[in-house]
Amino acid sequence: MKATNIPQTINSARLLSRLQELGRIGLDNDNIRTRLAATDEDKAGRDQLISWIKEAGLEVEIDRIGNIFGIWTTEENKYEKPIMLGSHIDTVINAGMYDGCYGVLSGLEVIKTLQEKRFKPARPIAVAAFTNEEGVRYQPDMMGSLVYAGGLSVEDALNSIGTDGTVLGKELERIGYAGSKEPGFIKPHAYIELHIEQGPILDKEGTPIGAVENLQGISWQRITITGVANHAGTTPTEMRHDAGLAAARVITYLRNRANASNGQTVATVGTICFEPNAVNVVPALATFTVDLRNPNEERLQQEEEALANYLKELAAVEEVTISTEQLVRFSPVTFDEKIVNVIEEAASKQGLPSKRMTSGAGHDAQMIARICPTAMIFVPSVDGISHNPKEYTKDTDLVAGANVLLNVVSNLTGIEE
Amino acid sequence: MKATNIPQTINSARLLSRLQELGRIGLDNDNIRTRLAATDEDKAGRDQLISWIKEAGLEVEIDRIGNIFGIWTTEENKYEKPIMLGSHIDTVINAGMYDGCYGVLSGLEVIKTLQEKRFKPARPIAVAAFTNEEGVRYQPDMMGSLVYAGGLSVEDALNSIGTDGTVLGKELERIGYAGSKEPGFIKPHAYIELHIEQGPILDKEGTPIGAVENLQGISWQRITITGVANHAGTTPTEMRHDAGLAAARVITYLRNRANASNGQTVATVGTICFEPNAVNVVPALATFTVDLRNPNEERLQQEEEALANYLKELAAVEEVTISTEQLVRFSPVTFDEKIVNVIEEAASKQGLPSKRMTSGAGHDAQMIARICPTAMIFVPSVDGISHNPKEYTKDTDLVAGANVLLNVVSNLTGIEE
Repeated sequence: MKATNIPQTINSARLLSRLQELGRIGLDNDNIRTRLAATDEDKAGRDQLISWIKEAGLEVEIDRIGNIFGIWTTEENKYEKPIMLGSHIDTVINAGMYDGCYGVLSGLEVIKTLQEKRFKPARPIAVAAFTNEEGVRYQPDMMGSLVYAGGLSVEDALNSIGTDGTVLGKELERIGYAGSKEPGFIKPHAYIELHIEQGPILDKEGTPIGAVENLQGISWQRITITGVANHAGTTPTEMRHDAGLAAARVITYLRNRANASNGQTVATVGTICFEPNAVNVVPALATFTVDLRNPNEERLQQEEEALANYLKELAAVEEVTISTEQLVRFSPVTFDEKIVNVIEEAASKQGLPSKRMTSGAGHDAQMIARICPTAMIFVPSVDGISHNPKEYTKDTDLVAGANVLLNVVSNLTGIEE
Repeated sequence: MKATNIPQTINSARLLSRLQELGRIGLDNDNIRTRLAATDEDKAGRDQLISWIKEAGLEVEIDRIGNIFGIWTTEENKYEKPIMLGSHIDTVINAGMYDGCYGVLSGLEVIKTLQEKRFKPARPIAVAAFTNEEGVRYQPDMMGSLVYAGGLSVEDALNSIGTDGTVLGKELERIGYAGSKEPGFIKPHAYIELHIEQGPILDKEGTPIGAVENLQGISWQRITITGVANHAGTTPTEMRHDAGLAAARVITYLRNRANASNGQTVATVGTICFEPNAVNVVPALATFTVDLRNPNEERLQQEEEALANYLKELAAVEEVTISTEQLVRFSPVTFDEKIVNVIEEAASKQGLPSKRMTSGAGHDAQMIARICPTAMIFVPSVDGISHNPKEYTKDTDLVAGANVLLNVVSNLTGIEE
């Protein structure tokens, strides 16, 4: 097949209307969209996806952790490793309609387009929807792709207890998505995930395509500072052991580190709690979380060490005791340089400016990168808003991203232009 | 009467056993002591106090806000203004046994001692137990003495709605302590309140007597900082509007001011709350309280102004909006210099080291100071602990404080030694 035969555009009307249609599933009476993993709402979303996959004539497979696959194989390519496209269709509580769904439906749209254009791919193409990417109901997040990549046993994952006391395995059985395939049954040749950025960079810069070359490492800690509860009026400053003040010092320290990191480290204290939490009592206890991210493992470790050393000094100076607990730790992921190049070229061919960038958020791609060459394509999120009903990406950007995916897939199926 | 006739010591065994007895009232099955204002437990404490007042042969009066008075008048002094001694017997939740009760029972003990020694005071002596000093069930605190001093109308106070939805006036009627006397019906010649320090200074220094010369002004504010909720991974540091970081900067700023105040200003952030309070979301909202105290009104105003200016700068730098709400504002109170001198002399005569000091906590004395010369005597609180079952003052210190009170009262009734 000649390069000129590569289709240039997906069916934008179909992609956009399906995004809307899937987005209407799981709306409650107040128009709040929630499809938590393995709930009735998730089942409704899955059923819709399966019906579209079947309508495209793809082979449907479900693995034991409930990951859904639609696979397009031809007689000519059936012994080749597939290109896998995908993301997830579960949502957070009160979600937007793009996060995850955009990648899954674009993957399916690319396959549909190639079929309709009678394109003959040199490899099978599969679209995947991974279970429980959001991790709201069951921990950890990105669970389906983590299990698929061998990072968590199926049994442990199925035994996960939800925030509502349910067991994931039972819930998957209940909604009819406890499949029989062993996770990992398809060994992809490559995995490409198209996703909204969920951050402000592309939108702010007016760049339509992000060629995502790596994904930040994430370190979550819970820090507990124990001081002494004392009367706010009667305790001289120098006799205080103020857990709240010590917490405030940590927060400002982390910002100083982030400022000094040349845009590489981000640090966030998103939760905090004082005890006894009374206006006129010096806090005896301050508990808060630290979210540290850096795309370089060595740098991330340096940040963790710097924080640990600072906490030691602080405990001595403020005469408080400090304990830390690691909640989450993912090393940074470097995506496949060749695929990132292909993404840049695909954007360029379509006249779309692109930018090499780091993913600040976690994605299924970071798990699948353990088992095959992987990369991601980002499109702008207006104002960087995500996990919120205000999450929005312009239709032109959605279509542009899907067209880039189409071009990348065409290229990676082995056809030289 | 000659100075040599002034009795030197109260009946320590009686005072200490009554403190214990009153302290057993309001214990629940877990031995937690709680006598919130105008509850059944408060009534039981009041009934016990009244029985002791009657046993001393004093005239009992209850005013409309439920303040209890035991008045010792003789034929010779009945046209003179009384010396008033007192404090409160309501408690916080899970309280110690000394706060307030020590002052009331010591006042009664001083009267009993003077009676038993056939002392003839030149003035009547009254002991007062003011309603709802703690302010846990009904706001504001120090309510009974505030009403008594004319700072709050009886009607407004009686209409107070409790944290449990009750109305104070109805509850006082229910427990039989809605009296008929108009608050302020006794115009005291002087008011002296003996109290545990509720702070660490006397205990740490090993000084048994505090001659309290003033009481800090108190400014409570609630500060609300509104930023923007953003993803902790995808939002570059320079694009953040982090309400939590801004709150942390305020906390460290306040400590810097306190450190620079030469021990005069104390500042406490005792409560805090972030929204949405998620590990991986930059806080959109931080709400916290500021408790600022200084014994000098001008200095307290300077602290308030400095904070207000800092908040303006901070709002501009961090691109957040900041609003403040004044919750409580009491000006500092300067006690009567002559009475403070009398307290120092009384301690000295008994061979007790004393220290002029500031009260960091609020007390009924700060209200009564509006209507008559007033001062306070402090005794050490071990480790400064109060509002806690661990609240403790050594028996020897309790007795020493009551003996100083006895000497001060003897002096103030007009007898020259």
